[in-house]
Amino acid sequence: MSILITGAGGFIGRELLSVLADSGEELVALDYKLGGIAERQGLTCVEADLCDRATLARLFDGSVNKVVHLAAVPGGAAEADPAASKRVNIDATLDLLDLAAAQGNCPRVVFASTIAVFGDMPSEGVDDATALRPQMIYGMHKAMIEIAMATLSRRGAIDGISLRLPGILARPLGPSGMKSAYMSEIFHALKNGQPYTLPVSTKAQMWLMSVTQCARNLAHALSFDTGLAPENRVATLPALRVSMQELVHAILRATGADPGLVSYEPDLPLEAAFGSQPPLETRAAAVMGMKHDGDIPALVANALAVIDQQGS
Amino acid sequence: MSILITGAGGFIGRELLSVLADSGEELVALDYKLGGIAERQGLTCVEADLCDRATLARLFDGSVNKVVHLAAVPGGAAEADPAASKRVNIDATLDLLDLAAAQGNCPRVVFASTIAVFGDMPSEGVDDATALRPQMIYGMHKAMIEIAMATLSRRGAIDGISLRLPGILARPLGPSGMKSAYMSEIFHALKNGQPYTLPVSTKAQMWLMSVTQCARNLAHALSFDTGLAPENRVATLPALRVSMQELVHAILRATGADPGLVSYEPDLPLEAAFGSQPPLETRAAAVMGMKHDGDIPALVANALAVIDQQGS
Repeated sequence: MSILITGAGGFIGRELLSVLADSGEELVALDYKLGGIAERQGLTCVEADLCDRATLARLFDGSVNKVVHLAAVPGGAAEADPAASKRVNIDATLDLLDLAAAQGNCPRVVFASTIAVFGDMPSEGVDDATALRPQMIYGMHKAMIEIAMATLSRRGAIDGISLRLPGILARPLGPSGMKSAYMSEIFHALKNGQPYTLPVSTKAQMWLMSVTQCARNLAHALSFDTGLAPENRVATLPALRVSMQELVHAILRATGADPGLVSYEPDLPLEAAFGSQPPLETRAAAVMGMKHDGDIPALVANALAVIDQQGS
Repeated sequence: MSILITGAGGFIGRELLSVLADSGEELVALDYKLGGIAERQGLTCVEADLCDRATLARLFDGSVNKVVHLAAVPGGAAEADPAASKRVNIDATLDLLDLAAAQGNCPRVVFASTIAVFGDMPSEGVDDATALRPQMIYGMHKAMIEIAMATLSRRGAIDGISLRLPGILARPLGPSGMKSAYMSEIFHALKNGQPYTLPVSTKAQMWLMSVTQCARNLAHALSFDTGLAPENRVATLPALRVSMQELVHAILRATGADPGLVSYEPDLPLEAAFGSQPPLETRAAAVMGMKHDGDIPALVANALAVIDQQGS
């Protein structure tokens, strides 16, 4: 029996491998580039494209009893190339679910969905009953897969759970395909004593979680009792809701950086899309035992620790 | 400017062509088999598979300002061949939406969705806020496309509306790929004075609409003000809720057939899936001006008239 992790070479995948390293479970890491991740006792590395159906079919040989599906064309990249998003975020993902189901062992499948399924959010707040109004191709495709995950679970083909990820901190620098990259870049800049101009105002409100906490939640989703999951098998992760002012204050405090390094040039459409997140209630996630970072200083400390590990 | 109708050779497509015949609009009828439908002034016939992307791309040359998308792999057939359902009900349908959007004229697109998106329905009733719990591959794929329709409409790429069709009467005899075929077969049998064994009990409750009324609603959906549509661009058509006892009684009365022709051998899973439809409230459809047949005798008369036209 083994746990297959797609997108294992990515920012979240690497952290998840680390969280699961001592679980005693056989891990299979799949990504088109696993650079730096080495095979070891209990870890098999497979470098292949998610769209390579022959490789996927070979992996699902009946031995996979758990899957964490992280691989995706992210938001900005999906918007720039909707056909690529369709290939990966819909076609390859449905193939993966079919192959997982065809094993006949009803494997646990944890699908990394996104808060982008909400699109324009009601300003009074979001909870488990909020209607989905995706605006981006990425959010649209993820919302479509949430339906497939729930239906296949209802049919007993898989034992699926979709977790909607908020902004995850602190991503490594470099092109991520994410329009929300600024949330991570401010950490790197202040940690390195460099100036940074934020594309949102101090008032921007964001749902945030450290990658450490995110990986812990994903690992928890592999083993908790899905009898506790809601009928639609979907939960929005319990992010902390943080204003940009609070976030900058906490990073300055933790790093000792000069407040003068930070300036603001709000990009209004970007702030509307990525910096206007209303109060969030995540009862389903709480019932399942999912957790946020605790408080803003802990979130910042966790995010900075991740940058230390990245060696930037 | 023209109206493209996919699945135009099918049961509903033919009726829609007839309803639109005097509209003065240019019609393009697409189906893999249009048998019997002849080109005429105002009607272009294209025999091609919906999955033939080159043909689709040629049709969307900027002149299509309205689409009714009826072509689909139906429920029973989708269940038997999920890959075929994926190809037609997801891939070809998304291609069609992309090509429609790429014209740049924000065409009206009417998508024939299905009450199968509800799956197991809450026994207290269904309304526009009822959560979707599809059980069948068909309902899952249709629910996924409802999300795409709404998102692309929100983005201004298309002006879409998804209508969830109930049981439509009276389909011609023969393999339809529909598990709900019995609802139509009882009409044919009694009209022809033949015995028929229903696979549900007298108590079965079904949401029904004549194909005549269905085609009128689809035609109405081509021209009504979508400002009246709900944000999710979805409406369940306002079917009449009819028990099998009421339906049989009305058919016997209209045809003068011998009541002894009808017997009942309930198939419990089938009755659970297709004969347990709870009270239905369709406010969104009402706001849009969609209508049911009026009453059971009118529904039966409309359905029997359709059989006359079919010449059975």
